[in-house]
Amino acid sequence: MFIPLTPIRFLHRAMDLFGSQTGVVCGSREFTYSEFGERCERLAGALKARGIGRGDRVAYLSFNTHKLLEGYYGVILAGAIIMPLNVRLALQELAAILEHAEAKMLLFENDFAPLVEKLRELCPSIRTYVSLGEPAEPAELTYDQLLATARRDERLDIMQVEENSIAEIFYTSGSTGTPKGVMLSHRSLYLHALAIMPYTGGLEPTVDLHTIPLFHANGWGAPQASTMMGARHVMVRRFEPGLVCSLIEKQRATHMSLVPAMANALINHPGLNNYDLSSLRVIMIGGAAASPELIARMERALGCRSVMAGYGLSETCPVLTVAVDKPFVHFDNEAERLRRRAMTGWAVPNVELRVVDLNGNDVAKDGSSIGELITRSDHVMEGYYNDPEGTAAAMSGSWFHTGDMAVWDGTGYVHIVDRKKEIIISGGENISSLEVERAIFAHEDVFECAVVAAPDDKWGEVPVAIVTRKPGSGLTAEILLAFLQDRLGRFKLPRQIEILDEPLPKTGTGKIRKLQLREPFWEGKAKRVQG
Amino acid sequence: MFIPLTPIRFLHRAMDLFGSQTGVVCGSREFTYSEFGERCERLAGALKARGIGRGDRVAYLSFNTHKLLEGYYGVILAGAIIMPLNVRLALQELAAILEHAEAKMLLFENDFAPLVEKLRELCPSIRTYVSLGEPAEPAELTYDQLLATARRDERLDIMQVEENSIAEIFYTSGSTGTPKGVMLSHRSLYLHALAIMPYTGGLEPTVDLHTIPLFHANGWGAPQASTMMGARHVMVRRFEPGLVCSLIEKQRATHMSLVPAMANALINHPGLNNYDLSSLRVIMIGGAAASPELIARMERALGCRSVMAGYGLSETCPVLTVAVDKPFVHFDNEAERLRRRAMTGWAVPNVELRVVDLNGNDVAKDGSSIGELITRSDHVMEGYYNDPEGTAAAMSGSWFHTGDMAVWDGTGYVHIVDRKKEIIISGGENISSLEVERAIFAHEDVFECAVVAAPDDKWGEVPVAIVTRKPGSGLTAEILLAFLQDRLGRFKLPRQIEILDEPLPKTGTGKIRKLQLREPFWEGKAKRVQG
Repeated sequence: MFIPLTPIRFLHRAMDLFGSQTGVVCGSREFTYSEFGERCERLAGALKARGIGRGDRVAYLSFNTHKLLEGYYGVILAGAIIMPLNVRLALQELAAILEHAEAKMLLFENDFAPLVEKLRELCPSIRTYVSLGEPAEPAELTYDQLLATARRDERLDIMQVEENSIAEIFYTSGSTGTPKGVMLSHRSLYLHALAIMPYTGGLEPTVDLHTIPLFHANGWGAPQASTMMGARHVMVRRFEPGLVCSLIEKQRATHMSLVPAMANALINHPGLNNYDLSSLRVIMIGGAAASPELIARMERALGCRSVMAGYGLSETCPVLTVAVDKPFVHFDNEAERLRRRAMTGWAVPNVELRVVDLNGNDVAKDGSSIGELITRSDHVMEGYYNDPEGTAAAMSGSWFHTGDMAVWDGTGYVHIVDRKKEIIISGGENISSLEVERAIFAHEDVFECAVVAAPDDKWGEVPVAIVTRKPGSGLTAEILLAFLQDRLGRFKLPRQIEILDEPLPKTGTGKIRKLQLREPFWEGKAKRVQG
Repeated sequence: MFIPLTPIRFLHRAMDLFGSQTGVVCGSREFTYSEFGERCERLAGALKARGIGRGDRVAYLSFNTHKLLEGYYGVILAGAIIMPLNVRLALQELAAILEHAEAKMLLFENDFAPLVEKLRELCPSIRTYVSLGEPAEPAELTYDQLLATARRDERLDIMQVEENSIAEIFYTSGSTGTPKGVMLSHRSLYLHALAIMPYTGGLEPTVDLHTIPLFHANGWGAPQASTMMGARHVMVRRFEPGLVCSLIEKQRATHMSLVPAMANALINHPGLNNYDLSSLRVIMIGGAAASPELIARMERALGCRSVMAGYGLSETCPVLTVAVDKPFVHFDNEAERLRRRAMTGWAVPNVELRVVDLNGNDVAKDGSSIGELITRSDHVMEGYYNDPEGTAAAMSGSWFHTGDMAVWDGTGYVHIVDRKKEIIISGGENISSLEVERAIFAHEDVFECAVVAAPDDKWGEVPVAIVTRKPGSGLTAEILLAFLQDRLGRFKLPRQIEILDEPLPKTGTGKIRKLQLREPFWEGKAKRVQG
């Protein structure tokens, strides 16, 4: 029997099966799944009353709160598309995205009120601004007012949902630096949640700490899978080690996901031993490559034996692989177990992977032959919003190109060893080197420049810029950095700017040899990506 | 990205990810998933070479063997539909089904050769007979010959599969006694496997003992879910307590499913304590209602703490509910825990349940108001083969009527307390009381008759017949039983035949009061269904 696949079914399921349980904890507030569901339905009613309808984009500028989580259901209940923005982006970047997406409504936390004030002029498509906190300019009303005035929507008839329609759009900078809106369908999100269910707690009582910003490919899929299984969502507004420790202790958290930078911050937190962290069962490390040493340190420091890497992209819902111990694969020793746990992992259900050479042929499964990782999966996006060319460039038939270079072996494990696209992953954030280069070139004294990734113990990778200046210019690293402040999100700013006097090395066709420029930073490292 | 949902993806996944592992154990034979997959692809090639194509029905008369399991993939790889027959049916019953389904090929174990010899004349649609063992009449070739001569089929391009097409047909006698072919789509089977994954082992190394005949709604979905997760299939050709115990010990089995009659036989097996059964992790009781006492006895006797009821129908792939402990539901004491474990359970993912009165309104969730259990789910069949009327009668819009009467409560648990349709469930087999009545009526001396369910300690329920004879007839219970021998499968034969001299009690409109006839057998029982 055909029943449309939509995450809305997860909300209904949670209301029906787990209605009286605490579903969401956010600061001092708690909501049962019944209450949460009612708020989502109220939000849907309010959005529709304000003219939001099928396919409209509703944007959020918000940290992790219950209100943002409500958007994941309320917005799509209204037939619209939720579009959570990366709060770390700068004004021009946000404006470019909102303009590209033609968002109709923006809900924002008051931290961003000054920014939103400036956005107003740049984004004519936005008809309604809603403050998620106290009344604030330029919002015409607050979220609480929005919900209070709304009639609660009737339960949506799921048979009316078109499963291949779009539910979420996440903008990534991509490798070219132009905004790319990853479109995820109801069907993809539904199937993704089913696939990752056993990794996110399955049938065990689960308390899921939302440490990853939900604007990052929806916090790695947790809103859906956790709701389906009646897990308790515990919102971490912003990652802060002390807050996370106290929430683990207080809420008896069982699951969380971290990027390596968060993981390092957590295990090095001075007060760590003052907390009871014994409830932790599974910790997933993603967003950047992990190391066996990090896995081992986390197991020791947090007393949790199930620490493992996971891998995915915004374009894949996101999860493609998890480095959970593979049944019937034997580890010769402890070092081997940790090495496996830090690998990219093996495919979750729904996901097919291949590692291919430039001609599209599978490379040998020998653990050393390198090729590009490509995937065919229900988790893959429907495409980039309003960008058929960008979409076509990412696909070969039904296979999506991750842009990551990997090895695979006979046991089904893959491991990413390098990156094809010019992306730098810093603290779990994707940074396009081309985008940073473009910002640098905007300075009139710059003659040539290249931005490459350098390894960093805290952030995994950081961008560094190598620049040559125009004849007679007095450009310094300090001047250039000051110039970039307003043009790039803080995390994209080069940590180091080298001003060279000789020209940058080039290929025969005149392309800058970025790999050569990158190499000195990585000397002595086994891989060319790092977590 | 739309990728067709088909169980064929599970086979490919197992070959790619678990290829070198032992996938299937059957008697003294073992196959890695690579070998198993190759055999399935070889079977597909052989079937196509013999003219089997899109939508053709391929029937099996087989106990649980690796060859039957290969059919679950090989047949659908050929684009055809697998149709495993209940081996306990009698000649006329099988003939009626094969004729109704117009099966093109029949593969049979040699135990059934004499039966198949007789089927030959009755089933003109069958073009090819294949013996699953040694050469035997009327088979023109053996399964081994079929595979040996075939070219292995190339890997199927899953993008070419129509996900809503039919993959499996299971015939049930239904409540009316006429053959009903339950059609399950590729999509339904795929989604069902994802939903039950955590119940069948999830990410843990799993050794799945196939104790339930695969012809029963494919052994409760195990072929798909276990293959997807790389579990080891251990085939139990026919349930026999000693064999099951020795297989648990030898194969370190972790999961199995049992009907209550099997469970009773197992825990009462004299040699039970001679076996090491410590590998068992989860035992599912289904096919008929379980009792808290049975759950407790099993936990004690088998040393397994996860024994729970499960519920479903052929029409639902089959699993709808499992009585696994519900996260965050607190049990006051041990008796309450066992009581919950023996309940029908709570809905697995993908499944919506309602308990409704005759007007289709939800009954109170108070644990005592009774209504019919209806479900809306991806697991529900596409309909009965060639039977639009029967299909329409089973559905209300998108909701399927189970025919089971249940209560539900505020915690999401449902519990079946009676049956709407005239079905008797004996040792996990559905028996239509109407079908047995029809067979009895065929005797010329029978005047009236009613077949009802009586409780039975071993089989849960057994059919009993209450008969009045024509004036002057010398009909006895013995004569009638002898008459029925060739007309009904052994398990459908009434265990007791009462010949009455007064007319059967009737309603005002002349219908026999079967509930009244049934009642004396159930005196002192709390429920009107039993396991």
